[in-house]
Order: sequence, then C-alpha cells, then structure tokens
Amino acid sequence: MMMEGKRLESIWYDRELDVVKIIDQNLLPHELRIAELKNLSDACHAITTMQVRGAPLIGITAAYGLYLSLKEDPRQQQLAIKKLLDTRPTAVNLRWALDKMQQSLSGIESELLAEKALETACLLKEEDSVICEAIGESGLPILQALWRQKKGYQDCINILTHCNAGALAAVDWGTALSVIYKTAEAGVPIHVWVDETRPRNQGASLTCWELSQAGIPNTLIVDNAGGHLMQLGQVDVCVVGSDRTTLGGDVCNKIGTYLKALAAAANNIPFYAALPISTIDSSMVTGIGSIPIEERSADEISYVYGVDQEGNRSKVRITEERTRIKNYGFDITPAQLITGIITEKGVFEANEISLRGALD
Amino acid sequence: MMMEGKRLESIWYDRELDVVKIIDQNLLPHELRIAELKNLSDACHAITTMQVRGAPLIGITAAYGLYLSLKEDPRQQQLAIKKLLDTRPTAVNLRWALDKMQQSLSGIESELLAEKALETACLLKEEDSVICEAIGESGLPILQALWRQKKGYQDCINILTHCNAGALAAVDWGTALSVIYKTAEAGVPIHVWVDETRPRNQGASLTCWELSQAGIPNTLIVDNAGGHLMQLGQVDVCVVGSDRTTLGGDVCNKIGTYLKALAAAANNIPFYAALPISTIDSSMVTGIGSIPIEERSADEISYVYGVDQEGNRSKVRITEERTRIKNYGFDITPAQLITGIITEKGVFEANEISLRGALD
Repeated sequence: MMMEGKRLESIWYDRELDVVKIIDQNLLPHELRIAELKNLSDACHAITTMQVRGAPLIGITAAYGLYLSLKEDPRQQQLAIKKLLDTRPTAVNLRWALDKMQQSLSGIESELLAEKALETACLLKEEDSVICEAIGESGLPILQALWRQKKGYQDCINILTHCNAGALAAVDWGTALSVIYKTAEAGVPIHVWVDETRPRNQGASLTCWELSQAGIPNTLIVDNAGGHLMQLGQVDVCVVGSDRTTLGGDVCNKIGTYLKALAAAANNIPFYAALPISTIDSSMVTGIGSIPIEERSADEISYVYGVDQEGNRSKVRITEERTRIKNYGFDITPAQLITGIITEKGVFEANEISLRGALD
Repeated sequence: MMMEGKRLESIWYDRELDVVKIIDQNLLPHELRIAELKNLSDACHAITTMQVRGAPLIGITAAYGLYLSLKEDPRQQQLAIKKLLDTRPTAVNLRWALDKMQQSLSGIESELLAEKALETACLLKEEDSVICEAIGESGLPILQALWRQKKGYQDCINILTHCNAGALAAVDWGTALSVIYKTAEAGVPIHVWVDETRPRNQGASLTCWELSQAGIPNTLIVDNAGGHLMQLGQVDVCVVGSDRTTLGGDVCNKIGTYLKALAAAANNIPFYAALPISTIDSSMVTGIGSIPIEERSADEISYVYGVDQEGNRSKVRITEERTRIKNYGFDITPAQLITGIITEKGVFEANEISLRGALD
C-alpha cells in the first residue's frame, strides 16, 4: 500500500543489512517509523508489544523470527518455536506459519537451516500478499451486488469494520480492508464506519490512517455507536477479519466483534468475515470453550496513548490506580450470525460442510 | 452517599453563600472538587460541559438554574427556560423539571418569583432523593430472587451496568446503582461489571469510583467486552438507567446500551432499565425516529482526559487531526429487549398498557 507517498509493506527482509524491517504500529497514526528486528528476542517483543499485530502479519513475523533465531544458533529450533508460539495464544496463524517453516526445514542440514528458513519466510510473505489480494477479489462481487441494489437510493455503500484487518494486519492489502480496496478500485462509491476498538484503539489509530492513506472516505465512531447507526439504516454491510475460525464457522476476532454481529442480525444487515484459509482451525468445530481467549494487561485499559499538545507521544491514566480491570482480547461470533466467509478461494457459508470444502 | 469519608449529595443549595454547589464530575476520579453555580450562565455551562450529567441531576440543576436567573432578573423567566432547555436535547427530565418550576411560579408576583423558585427547586431536589431510594427498593426483590436461584452455584450475583446511573447521576442513590446499593444493603453478595462507556468514560471515571466509595466490588471492562462475558455466563443481570423512556417502553440511554441489550437477549440474561417516572415521555410511544439523539463534539472522541505521570490532569489526542468523527450521545433500546422497567412506583413491563398504569 501507499503510506505517506511511499510504496510500503508491513514487513520485509532487508538483504543488505540482514535484518527484518517492520512498521512500528504502536506509533501510528502520529509517526510512521520503521523498526528493525535483529534477533529472536526482537521478533517476540514486536509480537507481544503489538508493534506488529493482525493474524496474517503475526504469522509472517514469527516465520522471520525463526530465521533470525536459526541464524544465531541453528540448534535452538524447538526452543525458538516454543518462544514464538507463546507470544500470542489466540491467533492460529502463528502456529500455521511455524508449521510451514518446520515442514520446509525438515531434513535440512544444520549449516543450511538459516538460509532455508529465510527462503521459506520470504516465500510465505510473498504468498500472504497474493492471498490477501485474492480475498479482496473474492469479496468484490458481494459489494458490487449490494451497490446495484442500493444505487438510486443512496450515494454510496456504507461499510462498518471493527479493529484493523487492513494492510497493516498483513503484509499488504489486508483481509476485510482488501475487500474494501478492491471495491473502491472497481469504482463503487464507498464510505467506511471505523469502530475505535478499545482498548488499543486500532480502529482510530490504524484503520482510519490506512484508509485515509488510500483515499477511502471513512468516519471514526466509538465501539458503542454501531448498533445505533444500524438502526438508522446507516450501515449496509459489515466486514471484519478473524484471528481464528472454526470448522463450524465460529469467528474469533477482536473483542467487540460479537456485539456488532448481533446488531447486524437484528437489523438484517449482512455480516462477513474476510480471512485467509490459514486462519481456519480444522481441529475444532465450535469456538466457545475451545479457543483460548487472550487476557492482556489491565494497563491497556487504564492508560491511553496519544500525543500531547506539543505533539509528543504521551499517555494519561483514565482510572484510579486501585481500579480492578479485566481485559479480554477477543470474542467469538457464532456461525449463525455470519452471512459468509470471504477467503482467497472464494466465499463460503459459515458451516462445517462448506468450510471443509474450503480446506480441500 | 459517602464520598471520601464525607456524606455528600451531587448538588445542594448553600444558603449562607446563596450559591448552588455541585461536584465537578469532569475531574473525577482523580479529584473530588466542589464547584459553585452563581448564575444562569454557570448552570447552563455546568450542564453542557457535563460537570453535572445524568437525567435526574440535569433536571435538578436546571431547576436551580432558573432560580439563579430569576434572582438576577425576574423578567427573564421564559428566556432562561429556553436557554436551559437548549443545553441538552435528549434527557426529558430537563423539560419535566422546568415544567414543574413553571407550574409552581404561575401567578406569583415578580418580587417573590426567585424565592418561590428556590423553594420549588429545593423541594424537587429532596423529592429526587426519595424517588431514587424508592427505585432501589423496587428493584431489590428482583435481585434477591436471582440470588435465591443462583445461591449454591455461585458466590455472588454479577450485574453489568453501562455509563453512570448512580448517585452522581442524581441527587443521591441514583437509578440503576440505587438497585445495587439496596441489594448490597440487604446482604446479597454482588459484583458489578462496569462498562467503560466511551467516549466520555463515565463508567471508568464515575461508576467505578462511586461503587468503590460504597465498598461494592466492581471490575472495569471496555464496552466491547460485555457480550463475551455474557457468553461465558459471567453476567446474571443487566441494570441500566434511562434518559428518556417512551410510553411503549423504548429506552433511550447512553450510546451502547442497545448493544448490551441485544447480547443479554441472545444469552437469556434479564435486562432492566431503572428510572424515575419523570423520565417517561408520555408524548411518544416509539423511540426510534421520535427522540432527538444528541450529537456531541468530535473532540470528545479524539481527546482522552486523564492524569499524567505527575498526577496532573492532562489530555492526549488519539487520532490524526484530520480524522472525520461522528459522536452520537445516546441510542434507543427497543421495548422487546427490556425485561422490566424499575421505577419508584414498582416494576412495570416495557409496554404501553403497563406504563400508562405507572403514569396514573
């Protein structure tokens, strides 16, 4: 995607410096700063502190992280994989990417491991971009059909999205936002309602920024507002990402997704999840009780980051210090609330029969 | 209620200084500061900037505001009423309180107007406290019955509330929180999930503070989290306030209430609105399209207030300056999602037949 006039991806390998480069997403939208990952510890830190986040991007970062580790010590493969898997419990792409890496490294001699790991990580990265673009192309006909219905009554299609499932959540294109980019490219007039997405405000800080960089009209709302907009007829369709999708079609995504899916169902608004097939966890049919839901630090809720009056990055504490806080990272939207699952292989129904077909 | 060891109400008349005193709620939970309202302009400013907020308290503040205006100029009654009505469009208590004031002032000679206005405002204030305490008593049997059902399986009743419908939203006791205070007083073990309530964070800054002052166990969550907790069986009942209730039982309350009501219905969790009869607007049956929904400044979303590392009140901007924002203050929860309406006269069904009975 274009970011501040430059063609950038969210992660890439710098061959000259032999480091992995990422956009430090904790500094957006106030500063576009490139950070370097030089070793396993940098990669784990980038994932846990959410300098990189989003299911596809976490997977690619872990793949590069394994390369960085093997470069330092080719004997530490299993330990490195364990450390990388421990960074985030919910997103299944982490495991998927590391499985792919292990398959490619199987039988490789010790002195060639690092080289092979780099080759595979770069390949996975390139594939991710192709897959995400294909997700957008799969979703395009859905929004085109909606526009044909609405045209004459409305001047654009209003799409609601939650969190950031954009180029910043992947290598490029994104998942939910890929559908939006492809729809805009196809000449359909669109406007995006962006949920702020507390506690980390990925909507406010990443999605609004990313959409504005791409010239897509967007409006920020608080997470509380989506239901009201749907009642008013101001939302035509919802498109979100997914961190893990069960075979039965339950979608585990950023906390709050479930509430928007309920409101969409109550107001007869189609609700789509857009995701790479790698997000589908074939080991489970039902999500509730099976998918581990990450609990994160209370500080993510009590401290809010932004810029102060001088434009410097700063934080304020909004609660009393003694306030007790629970901070769940994800929730599960049951399959019956999902209109369809948009993947790189096409659109599937949110049920086991259909999704088994997607995995073939 | 007890606040920092002192018995305080949210608003009172100081006879010695001839001023109205309020708690400046914009400074909580970091500072408990008393502010003085000396004239009409102070009263209007306190309502619009939300130094005072909450349907009952807005009404009482407007009543005192009319006194402060008549004291300065008894000929400006109609102009003062208009200015006060214009401060907030959604809460119907503002109009209710000013109607009560006008009735009591009708036929009073000019030089006695201010005195009569003060007398009536003080009366309305005392009544509000009695009414809110009665709301708590009406709701108590509901929570006692829930506890009888759950006892043996659970160690407490988990109540979810949104925004602040506590003593700080009224003169004392509050509406939703009055039910909670009365239930705790009756010896039922309770724990309250407090929605943060973006954009102004009244849950984080007022409800957690108020409940903690009263010694009631509470946990702060982001507005996105309630649905997930309900799916997990961690919420036994929801109790919220109301800024305006239609005869048909639609409840207009803080933005986001509707989403929690949808989640409660989807998970078979009872959802109650607790409100004074004065909040019922007998001029309308259906809320959507009839109740004006206040739109507030985008700055409420883009700037977040808290304390900095030195403990000083400070703000940060979380968005880019160019970000387009929509900020709706309220939403409407349709009657069919409301289990019951708890008032000072008892508990009513959310329908026209039942609520006409409440108005008799």
